[in-house]
Amino acid sequence: MIQSSYNSTLLENAVSELSKLPGIGRKTALRLALHLLRREENEAVALGESIINMRRHINYCRRCHNISEKEVCPICSDSRRDASTVCVVENVKDVITIESTRQHSGLYHVLGGVISPLDGVSPADLEIDSLVKRVEEENLQEVILALSPTIEGDTTNFYIYRKLADLPVRVTMLARGLSIGNELEYTDELTLGKSIQNRVLFTTSFPRQ
Amino acid sequence: MIQSSYNSTLLENAVSELSKLPGIGRKTALRLALHLLRREENEAVALGESIINMRRHINYCRRCHNISEKEVCPICSDSRRDASTVCVVENVKDVITIESTRQHSGLYHVLGGVISPLDGVSPADLEIDSLVKRVEEENLQEVILALSPTIEGDTTNFYIYRKLADLPVRVTMLARGLSIGNELEYTDELTLGKSIQNRVLFTTSFPRQ
Repeated sequence: MIQSSYNSTLLENAVSELSKLPGIGRKTALRLALHLLRREENEAVALGESIINMRRHINYCRRCHNISEKEVCPICSDSRRDASTVCVVENVKDVITIESTRQHSGLYHVLGGVISPLDGVSPADLEIDSLVKRVEEENLQEVILALSPTIEGDTTNFYIYRKLADLPVRVTMLARGLSIGNELEYTDELTLGKSIQNRVLFTTSFPRQ
Repeated sequence: MIQSSYNSTLLENAVSELSKLPGIGRKTALRLALHLLRREENEAVALGESIINMRRHINYCRRCHNISEKEVCPICSDSRRDASTVCVVENVKDVITIESTRQHSGLYHVLGGVISPLDGVSPADLEIDSLVKRVEEENLQEVILALSPTIEGDTTNFYIYRKLADLPVRVTMLARGLSIGNELEYTDELTLGKSIQNRVLFTTSFPRQ
């Protein structure tokens, strides 16, 4: 009696494609598809085309491996930025996050992940050799390690630190300490301990700059 | 210093279109877009095209207002179904839900919503007149009101019931009672009361039939 559970193969296709997205199950996918059916046609077309255009035309910067529409990304080709300082991040999203702080005026280097034997990610899968090459060829003054403070992130930080140890470059990492706005009482002991070890001179210019 | 927060207008476009979807904020939209960038190109293209094709080519059945790729939907044009019984539902999704029970062999009538003065939905916004017309013209034997047991659903049920009162058609509604698998103790009083009022003869063929 039932021909196709959704009564339309076009709807089925859309639901099955949408449900391939992370965190979107078939029920949510159906809700999204039915929402798009209720909206103006041009809205659904704009969504579909923006996805296709993005995937077809975005590439990766050959210097820093950030996403880019050109061969070299806008950050790398911006002469106002400090090309002697490179911030090493796990992925493209972290570039966006750090840019939003407006506290880094140098360039980036996107690793494409962190070392994680459990997930089968070894140093060779990451853009680490290309980082070492950049340090050598671009005469970098400072490499800021900005990976997440997790076991994988710290392992990767340490691996990169060892790789760069013999090169004339300052290797720094992000400070660990209290989260602004969080109660001291709810800060975990490790972080609180680090914030004591790494205490800094009191200043009246507040952390938000 | 920052040119565009995402470093790519293509990415920005995709994120802004994705974040128009219900329940998807800019952070989730960015996560979805970056996921699509990491996948094969054909996967992103398939998603985009399935959305465009669905919106461009799906229409609504002129008889029951369910989604349909043709002028009359596969359910309405299926001669094996009982054309004398019509199940009235709020939306397309409810058709899919009721079809999945395999307990309704008749046709449907999709109202396109329920009466809700707070949301500005009046009877004239819904496919109620066309339902009355169907009852008259198609010589229907039974109309099953299958709206949600909410204030809006019950208001709409009652409104339709009044509209059909003078016509020679049996108007029924879905039973209210215990949810299968739920403890009696956790059933609300109203529902439990209804399940006593509407008790049925004991049978050994279990409800899941």
